[in-house]
Amino acid sequence: MPHEITATIISIGDELLIGQTINTNAGWIGMQLGLIGVRTKRVVTIGDERQEILDTLGEATTDIVLITGGLGPTKDDITKHTLCEFFGTTLEKHPEIEASILAFFTSIGREPLEVNRAQADLPASCTVIPNTRGTASGMWFDVDEQGAPNAKATVYVSMPGVPGEMKRMMLDTVLPYLVQRFDPPSIVHRTILTTGMGESHLAQRIEGWEDSLAAEHIKLAYLPSPGTVKLRLSAYAEEDPDAAIQRINSKVAELHALIPELIFGEGEQRMQEVVGRLMKKHGQTLSLAESCTGGYVSHLITSVPGSSAYFTGGVVSYANAVKMEELGIPSDMLELNGAVSQPVAEQMATGVRTALRTDWSIAITGIAGPDGGTPEKPVGTVWIAVAGADGVQSKCEHFIGSRGAVIQRSALASLEMLRRRLLDSSS
Amino acid sequence: MPHEITATIISIGDELLIGQTINTNAGWIGMQLGLIGVRTKRVVTIGDERQEILDTLGEATTDIVLITGGLGPTKDDITKHTLCEFFGTTLEKHPEIEASILAFFTSIGREPLEVNRAQADLPASCTVIPNTRGTASGMWFDVDEQGAPNAKATVYVSMPGVPGEMKRMMLDTVLPYLVQRFDPPSIVHRTILTTGMGESHLAQRIEGWEDSLAAEHIKLAYLPSPGTVKLRLSAYAEEDPDAAIQRINSKVAELHALIPELIFGEGEQRMQEVVGRLMKKHGQTLSLAESCTGGYVSHLITSVPGSSAYFTGGVVSYANAVKMEELGIPSDMLELNGAVSQPVAEQMATGVRTALRTDWSIAITGIAGPDGGTPEKPVGTVWIAVAGADGVQSKCEHFIGSRGAVIQRSALASLEMLRRRLLDSSS
Repeated sequence: MPHEITATIISIGDELLIGQTINTNAGWIGMQLGLIGVRTKRVVTIGDERQEILDTLGEATTDIVLITGGLGPTKDDITKHTLCEFFGTTLEKHPEIEASILAFFTSIGREPLEVNRAQADLPASCTVIPNTRGTASGMWFDVDEQGAPNAKATVYVSMPGVPGEMKRMMLDTVLPYLVQRFDPPSIVHRTILTTGMGESHLAQRIEGWEDSLAAEHIKLAYLPSPGTVKLRLSAYAEEDPDAAIQRINSKVAELHALIPELIFGEGEQRMQEVVGRLMKKHGQTLSLAESCTGGYVSHLITSVPGSSAYFTGGVVSYANAVKMEELGIPSDMLELNGAVSQPVAEQMATGVRTALRTDWSIAITGIAGPDGGTPEKPVGTVWIAVAGADGVQSKCEHFIGSRGAVIQRSALASLEMLRRRLLDSSS
Repeated sequence: MPHEITATIISIGDELLIGQTINTNAGWIGMQLGLIGVRTKRVVTIGDERQEILDTLGEATTDIVLITGGLGPTKDDITKHTLCEFFGTTLEKHPEIEASILAFFTSIGREPLEVNRAQADLPASCTVIPNTRGTASGMWFDVDEQGAPNAKATVYVSMPGVPGEMKRMMLDTVLPYLVQRFDPPSIVHRTILTTGMGESHLAQRIEGWEDSLAAEHIKLAYLPSPGTVKLRLSAYAEEDPDAAIQRINSKVAELHALIPELIFGEGEQRMQEVVGRLMKKHGQTLSLAESCTGGYVSHLITSVPGSSAYFTGGVVSYANAVKMEELGIPSDMLELNGAVSQPVAEQMATGVRTALRTDWSIAITGIAGPDGGTPEKPVGTVWIAVAGADGVQSKCEHFIGSRGAVIQRSALASLEMLRRRLLDSSS
């Protein structure tokens, strides 16, 4: 394996320490560094305090130190002054930065205050990194222990803490600069999205395939969340990047052959986007009848921009009266089988499909808990039905976890059931 | 001000460094420590590596060091072994912990593996903290530099990284022990929940009141999230805790008089819980007609356990056909005014209230974006209507932000509108 490039992330901000803001920046940065082949060794979160900042800067022993936060106009620029102290330099006005700050304020139709203008005062010895989303510039310090530029030294980069500004700066400037500066071994990734099987069972199922990855120098990571497990394959492109891509592609093809029924997508896709794309492709429409999920599936589907092209609407039938009147469930069917049952789920699906005149419909009825379970139908019992032109199909699931987890797993399972019907109907 | 008690939080786990899991534990712990008057000085996140753990334990200079993670059965118990090394002790079997692990597995109907039994092996010199949610025990080390118990020494506490297990352990055992052990200056808090005004405008509105807090030794924190701003008042109870409580209560009363229309609750309540409690209290029922929010309001309401007592159901009317057929919107009303208009919102509300025979109903129709806006009705234009026995009321809002933010703000504004109607109707 090539020489490993390591990084420390320093997150500055009192709001992070008191739990007012969750530190999502550090995880995002760690992930981005991983993608270019840099290993994050530690994350240190500290308050807006000079001595704490100096101590933490001094302790770092990695090739790269990425600092976020403490650059806002109202925070007395504590980070900027402390960086000057640490690197033995002083602030100087950067006229081109001042001009861009003034232009930024003009564009949003406001007058800059003196504190905004002062954001153009930056350490003399740093390379300024432009901020296309705000007024706090980034700073790149490339120094050895004597403060002089040195090819072997640690690089310190200071960025604003506002996630949108920091991410833009990282993607546009810092990551490309780091690749250029350190030439880390480039890494190739593919992420395969699975649903329908928990992490440990999935690991058992693909054990042989996973064992075969080592010979191809491919690493596998399981990234689980309720209802899905992402499988991330990574390979160092030591020689020819194309060769690494080919090695990964061939293993992904094997995985598709091994667990075809568990894979629903790839990369950053969400299930509702995958389903939405299929609906659009087929030019078809969808309606929903939700009981225990209480509108959550509708919410997922409509969270996708442009979903009105295929999503007509739905009924949230929490009370039995709504199931009867809006979805045409006969009252004796409810009495005989209970609301959480196969006939009710199937009638909900066909009822909403007929009422809203859509090509497809999903129905969900279950017991999300924490109350309402019985010995025959414990909390987590959920019936899901999908109706289409070729009929209605249904299945019963037994989910574990909190009310929220049961709702989330039910939603994902119902969308997956629809996705498979869509694939079957077009094949 | 009394002597300040400080803490370091050490979060252990490779998954945190690579961004696979966001470190939400550290922020939660920081907030809990703040509530008992302990200041978190730094959070250090490191991987599951012996040397990193030893270095980080050794660096801590605070009264308290709280460690989470690295205690799972499959991680080679790296944290446990490293703690033994750091404190110069060895693992010993705790029979009562082994018994409780076996009982835990019996309760979930599974057989424990050898790695689960090994979780009863714990450092000889620590006080074991029971885990009521899982099998990884917590460990409390109270030592001076020589490893002997000492009233002035740093306390190290190791807990599992699973949030539910760690939180239970903190609330039940660790926080009470820390209060007893360090007797930190006790702090009194009250958190007031507001909606309907952004942070900076709210700050302007209550500026005079905020300035008056200093004289009462009360600190104010703004905790904003889309649609709400929480105001947290804190006071050290230096002498008499009752006096501090009284000082805060009197200022909260002033705030209620100052911005009565913006306050919807207190503490950890969520808007949907506040509304749910009012519905239950009045013994009334609710239905929904959602267009642009696409089921999100239904989802919020049904995320509250027991919501079936007052929530009957709803219609997600994404397509105009659904608005006409399920909610009785005349087609010429849609043609004349457009779907995003006052008459349509009001008719949606009265239509769903009549169809589902509820006491109250909410209707929302708007343009969530990113597409669909026009010069007259830009993205973010949202009509909200609330119907009850005394008639229907409506209003138009112009929200800014992403599709997700418009949906969230619309949902919150509609629930707030219902809340005010419920209060008015009962007064």
